[in-house]
Amino acid sequence: MEEFDYQEKLTQAEIRLTEFLAEQIRNSATYFGYPEIPQNNDLSILGISGLAKLHLNNAGDPSVHGNAKMHTKEFEKEVLDFVAKLYDLESYWGYITSGGTEGNLYGLYMGREYFTQKNKKPFFLFSSSSHYSIPKNAHLLNVDAFQVNCDGSGEMNYKNLTEKIKSINTKHKEYGLIINLNIGTTMTGAMDELSEIHNVLDELHIPKEDVYIHADAALMGFIYPFLSSKEDLFANGVSSIAISGHKFPGTIHPCGVLLANKSMHDATFQDANWIPYLEANDTTISGSRNGFLALNFWYIIQKKGVNGFKEEAMTCIENAQYLYNSLNEMNYPDVAYNADQLIVTFEKPCDEIVQKYQLATQGNKAHIVVMQHISKHKIDQFCTLLKSTSQNLELVKG
Amino acid sequence: MEEFDYQEKLTQAEIRLTEFLAEQIRNSATYFGYPEIPQNNDLSILGISGLAKLHLNNAGDPSVHGNAKMHTKEFEKEVLDFVAKLYDLESYWGYITSGGTEGNLYGLYMGREYFTQKNKKPFFLFSSSSHYSIPKNAHLLNVDAFQVNCDGSGEMNYKNLTEKIKSINTKHKEYGLIINLNIGTTMTGAMDELSEIHNVLDELHIPKEDVYIHADAALMGFIYPFLSSKEDLFANGVSSIAISGHKFPGTIHPCGVLLANKSMHDATFQDANWIPYLEANDTTISGSRNGFLALNFWYIIQKKGVNGFKEEAMTCIENAQYLYNSLNEMNYPDVAYNADQLIVTFEKPCDEIVQKYQLATQGNKAHIVVMQHISKHKIDQFCTLLKSTSQNLELVKG
Amino acid sequence: MEEFDYQEKLTQAEIRLTEFLAEQIRNSATYFGYPEIPQNNDLSILGISGLAKLHLNNAGDPSVHGNAKMHTKEFEKEVLDFVAKLYDLESYWGYITSGGTEGNLYGLYMGREYFTQKNKKPFFLFSSSSHYSIPKNAHLLNVDAFQVNCDGSGEMNYKNLTEKIKSINTKHKEYGLIINLNIGTTMTGAMDELSEIHNVLDELHIPKEDVYIHADAALMGFIYPFLSSKEDLFANGVSSIAISGHKFPGTIHPCGVLLANKSMHDATFQDANWIPYLEANDTTISGSRNGFLALNFWYIIQKKGVNGFKEEAMTCIENAQYLYNSLNEMNYPDVAYNADQLIVTFEKPCDEIVQKYQLATQGNKAHIVVMQHISKHKIDQFCTLLKSTSQNLELVKG
Amino acid sequence: MEEFDYQEKLTQAEIRLTEFLAEQIRNSATYFGYPEIPQNNDLSILGISGLAKLHLNNAGDPSVHGNAKMHTKEFEKEVLDFVAKLYDLESYWGYITSGGTEGNLYGLYMGREYFTQKNKKPFFLFSSSSHYSIPKNAHLLNVDAFQVNCDGSGEMNYKNLTEKIKSINTKHKEYGLIINLNIGTTMTGAMDELSEIHNVLDELHIPKEDVYIHADAALMGFIYPFLSSKEDLFANGVSSIAISGHKFPGTIHPCGVLLANKSMHDATFQDANWIPYLEANDTTISGSRNGFLALNFWYIIQKKGVNGFKEEAMTCIENAQYLYNSLNEMNYPDVAYNADQLIVTFEKPCDEIVQKYQLATQGNKAHIVVMQHISKHKIDQFCTLLKSTSQNLELVKG
Repeated sequence: MEEFDYQEKLTQAEIRLTEFLAEQIRNSATYFGYPEIPQNNDLSILGISGLAKLHLNNAGDPSVHGNAKMHTKEFEKEVLDFVAKLYDLESYWGYITSGGTEGNLYGLYMGREYFTQKNKKPFFLFSSSSHYSIPKNAHLLNVDAFQVNCDGSGEMNYKNLTEKIKSINTKHKEYGLIINLNIGTTMTGAMDELSEIHNVLDELHIPKEDVYIHADAALMGFIYPFLSSKEDLFANGVSSIAISGHKFPGTIHPCGVLLANKSMHDATFQDANWIPYLEANDTTISGSRNGFLALNFWYIIQKKGVNGFKEEAMTCIENAQYLYNSLNEMNYPDVAYNADQLIVTFEKPCDEIVQKYQLATQGNKAHIVVMQHISKHKIDQFCTLLKSTSQNLELVKG
Repeated sequence: MEEFDYQEKLTQAEIRLTEFLAEQIRNSATYFGYPEIPQNNDLSILGISGLAKLHLNNAGDPSVHGNAKMHTKEFEKEVLDFVAKLYDLESYWGYITSGGTEGNLYGLYMGREYFTQKNKKPFFLFSSSSHYSIPKNAHLLNVDAFQVNCDGSGEMNYKNLTEKIKSINTKHKEYGLIINLNIGTTMTGAMDELSEIHNVLDELHIPKEDVYIHADAALMGFIYPFLSSKEDLFANGVSSIAISGHKFPGTIHPCGVLLANKSMHDATFQDANWIPYLEANDTTISGSRNGFLALNFWYIIQKKGVNGFKEEAMTCIENAQYLYNSLNEMNYPDVAYNADQLIVTFEKPCDEIVQKYQLATQGNKAHIVVMQHISKHKIDQFCTLLKSTSQNLELVKG
Repeated sequence: MEEFDYQEKLTQAEIRLTEFLAEQIRNSATYFGYPEIPQNNDLSILGISGLAKLHLNNAGDPSVHGNAKMHTKEFEKEVLDFVAKLYDLESYWGYITSGGTEGNLYGLYMGREYFTQKNKKPFFLFSSSSHYSIPKNAHLLNVDAFQVNCDGSGEMNYKNLTEKIKSINTKHKEYGLIINLNIGTTMTGAMDELSEIHNVLDELHIPKEDVYIHADAALMGFIYPFLSSKEDLFANGVSSIAISGHKFPGTIHPCGVLLANKSMHDATFQDANWIPYLEANDTTISGSRNGFLALNFWYIIQKKGVNGFKEEAMTCIENAQYLYNSLNEMNYPDVAYNADQLIVTFEKPCDEIVQKYQLATQGNKAHIVVMQHISKHKIDQFCTLLKSTSQNLELVKG
Repeated sequence: MEEFDYQEKLTQAEIRLTEFLAEQIRNSATYFGYPEIPQNNDLSILGISGLAKLHLNNAGDPSVHGNAKMHTKEFEKEVLDFVAKLYDLESYWGYITSGGTEGNLYGLYMGREYFTQKNKKPFFLFSSSSHYSIPKNAHLLNVDAFQVNCDGSGEMNYKNLTEKIKSINTKHKEYGLIINLNIGTTMTGAMDELSEIHNVLDELHIPKEDVYIHADAALMGFIYPFLSSKEDLFANGVSSIAISGHKFPGTIHPCGVLLANKSMHDATFQDANWIPYLEANDTTISGSRNGFLALNFWYIIQKKGVNGFKEEAMTCIENAQYLYNSLNEMNYPDVAYNADQLIVTFEKPCDEIVQKYQLATQGNKAHIVVMQHISKHKIDQFCTLLKSTSQNLELVKG
């Protein structure tokens, strides 16, 4: 009886997984609402090569190899090198995180520690368009945080930033400012301007050493370096950056990169905990870190290279512009697009479309993130369906 | 030229990965020092079924399905149900974390929030044998923490606990105690006794509502419920537990389970942030969560079931005892073993053995974690090598 | 339009394959009628290791490596060595075929050539229980063939063999006899006895050099060497043997082994065609030969070894006996079983059962081949279903 | 001891396979000499989807589904339909073979049977440039065969064909001619012209019903239909065709398609053996047929479609022309190329190059088959190496 249940159950489990796979392949064809590439056959090659069946653990600092040999820290290092080079960051510290949230958490944590050990009270400033994890992280880290207003586009309102800093300045003496710089907000893709922030800081005579700027470039991290409008972040006072691996690069499995200015990092964590158990420094937030993620990330970098990422970035921006134009041509309401990025926002369509295309919505708005798998043809299909349902609903006003 | 570099580089990348795979298969045969199953062919079946190539994202609360359909929250729920049942926890909240560290972080975070919203100052008590992430987490969360001494076995010294609590009591009035209960320490596998802790609390007349106990059962979480010596944790005041998936269960990819008493959780996070963008509550520390991990965990549970885990647990304990006896028989110095668990400690052997078997060491001690892949025969081989090298070094004193 | 069709079609193709996979996993659970292991997870490991994506071609003679390096002839050789050792055949020639039929074709072909080049007319004798490919092969090779009657069990009737040889002897002078020896017939698993055939030949004073015996051991080839009743085939005049890889060994993908006495082979094919194009001799019937099959076969041999095959053989025979007893206990009609093999025959059940269990039938008989995946428990389930449907149909007479 | 040997041996086996994989990836980069695509990642997706672990057996006629459900005959049928459409063959019989050789064997077999049952003696005519399996097949089938001379290009010499037929005609009355039509010879890619053969037959007043033409289009089968120079084969008296799946289509695992004119097939095999055991007709040469091959073939067809094959064909022809021009530009000796195909022949280079590029050679000639993986850039690399080694050897005469 026992054995039957077991065999039968296992057969049922395998069938269920297989049917789940079929269902998800179907879903991936209309995955429009979130900034991920929903399917990557190249990586399944990797997975199946047998590497997915091994416990590869990059516990501890990526640059220190402990006693356990089953890790991928050499590959991790090459990924970090690649990203650092994209940002002209010669001397860096960093690691592959479990996702964008951990990267942002680390940035804020490093900022907090930086000022705390200098006996300055840290204050955190972030715009209202920031990712939902940003205030969560501040709460977790127990850092006093101030939300800065945004313009309609989603970009930080620098006047409001000035006011917020002034209000801190009024009440406090020995303090440090940690500022979150959005390189692409979640909902509209808006990018804050570093130079504008510096204008504010200069105007208020805030000394450079009292400011820690962290860049959240979750989606745009592998696109921003190719934009003509880009600023040179690390040369201009950014101390850390967080980028998602499963968004634009397409590692499929969630992961991210955190990069920090090395001298800042060294100054902050002078006595990073040496863990004899690991024969490594415990410098990361996660403990055990999935070494398979580094292999995925590394393989994609070999496959695409700088040119590959650049071409994909340009195509996606072009296609986002194409979606924007298409929606405008049909007079669809409330269409908006910030230049040089992948997100188009518009009035929330009927439920059928929200469901089918798995659209992210906020209030009366929806958006599409034009990732690599969304071709002009798929955009045409979407617009055709949108038009037909809108007409039925008399939503589009001529 | 371009194209050559590309093709050639890709070929080189594939060759490097393949050779890396061969090297790691070799390493996995003598992976003795850390609490993981180094290789799991069953899961590679899963990976290759095509599920590993899909972006499956369990962002947000596991019980709330948002607009995006590409998730595995149904499977996650079944994993949590399974673990809750192991612990007779009828009403729970929980999620699959990125690893044991996130689970412990969550437990402490929940404790902090629980008391903070009651306007009580939280204090954290953890034994000196706790995992290295425990004090790191306290620092991250900005919670005042006290380290409690341990006995030689690695178990918490309850007298010292009494003293530490007294010292808090002396200085503070409205406070809450968050106590870390080790269900198996990292180095010696020692288990703290819940009843002893309650004796201390009772003796000091600390009200139950001022205590939050979090259990760190990283390695032992799927073994403890089968022990005759077990205590009924959640019925006796434990509020949360963290268990690793890649340790005893063998999910290969790092992940973990965090389970919490539901009424405690509801009381703590009354207004858990609703994120319109996700159509889900943002109740977890991570943002994007890897849905493939839930599939791995779920599949293992189907494959092994309660009986499978129980049998494996008994075999591992038996084999650990066998290693302990073998080392004693050869008069190897400094051998120690705490009953009912998988870790045997002994004097650190020569570098050759530490390297080959990738042993974790601390000071002059090393340990072996007798996981499922370490058979009696492998133990014999290890002891034979140890004996021969020890004799050369005249380490073993007759 | 083009592009849409393409993407959509590909998505549909992937979904169809995935659903096909689910359906086949279901079918494999009740695959009772044919002599194959329907599913082998171990091999999918192999496939996925990346070896399945390479064109590995063992064209030409297995012992001659040509210019093309993408072959697996070293692995093929080790498989052949293993099988030769099972049969105490020190000096052999052989290769991995595309299946049992090619092996039998090769045996008959070699027999034909052996006599032809000695200017003797070849005649082929095979029993009526032989596999359906046996007379087909004779027709293909244009060899005169005589069908010998069988006993009720499926074993060759040696008296009838005597008569058939006599009738040849009457009409011809310079001739050679090619005799097919069944080591397990397709329908009942009956084994012809080599010693009985020699009795017939001795009685008729047929010189040894005028006889070529080929053994068809498609299913039993990896079982027969472990039987106490076995005869020493090659030491007693057998010149070649054909064994299926996808039957008892479980290579999943159809393939087989053909082994021949080396001195006989050399004598027959003295001037085996040298193909400059391949830098190899064209000694096999197939041209391009799938090198992946040799890897599968080799891996299984590493995994199971002689002891593994022996144990599996004993278990299957025990389970076949168990099925036989179970059917008898329920007084099911027409149950038969020949000792020391895996097949049980019985009256053809109702269509529902034939369909579900995919039973092979012949006239009013059906059979089950008790392969490794058919456990006692699965047999119980089958018998329970058979009983219930039989009672409804009043088939079973009490 | 036993257990150690087993575990250790298995680890060694896995390492050996993995290192073998690395070696073969390296070899695949310079696989120039034979008409195969050496690596196909798309198919490994398929393999890994779990389909490679199932025993899928298309035993018997492809259009008859027997009791066993674990087959892929529906997919096989769609592959055959696709190929038949390429050749405007409305009414066909066919199956997926184990490779080109089986297809050619079947064609000749069908020709033999066609005439035999009409009581005409079959004679087989094939050119000296035919694949080495062609005369082997004739010998196997015991058909009298005549080798026809070729022109320097490798095309059949039609005058010599006339003479050979005349010599048959002189000695025999009731006979049938089976003519092998090369659609691309193995060494030079030369194509015989069907119309020229008809001229010969007309001239000699051979009645149509006494001629059976089989086309061997192993490599060119998926290219020929796209050539402007193509003839309409089946409308002009071709009765059967054999095409390899692992050559131009790229199924990786050896397989092929055999297609025959249905009315011819029906006339030939009127009483095709019904096998109760299979519940299918035994109309193929192989018995068990690997159903996974049909899935591979089917998936490629979904992936490429008619347009995909056409584009690839045009690119390969263009690249072959490019290689031809490059070799001529460096005055390399003995360069030859027949229009509209993929093979370029030239003087055999030094051993180092023959080895590295795994070149097929015949006498003093070598050839390259410009398959899909051989880009212009790889051709440039090859020519550069050839030039440097040739100059050293003073092989190239200015």
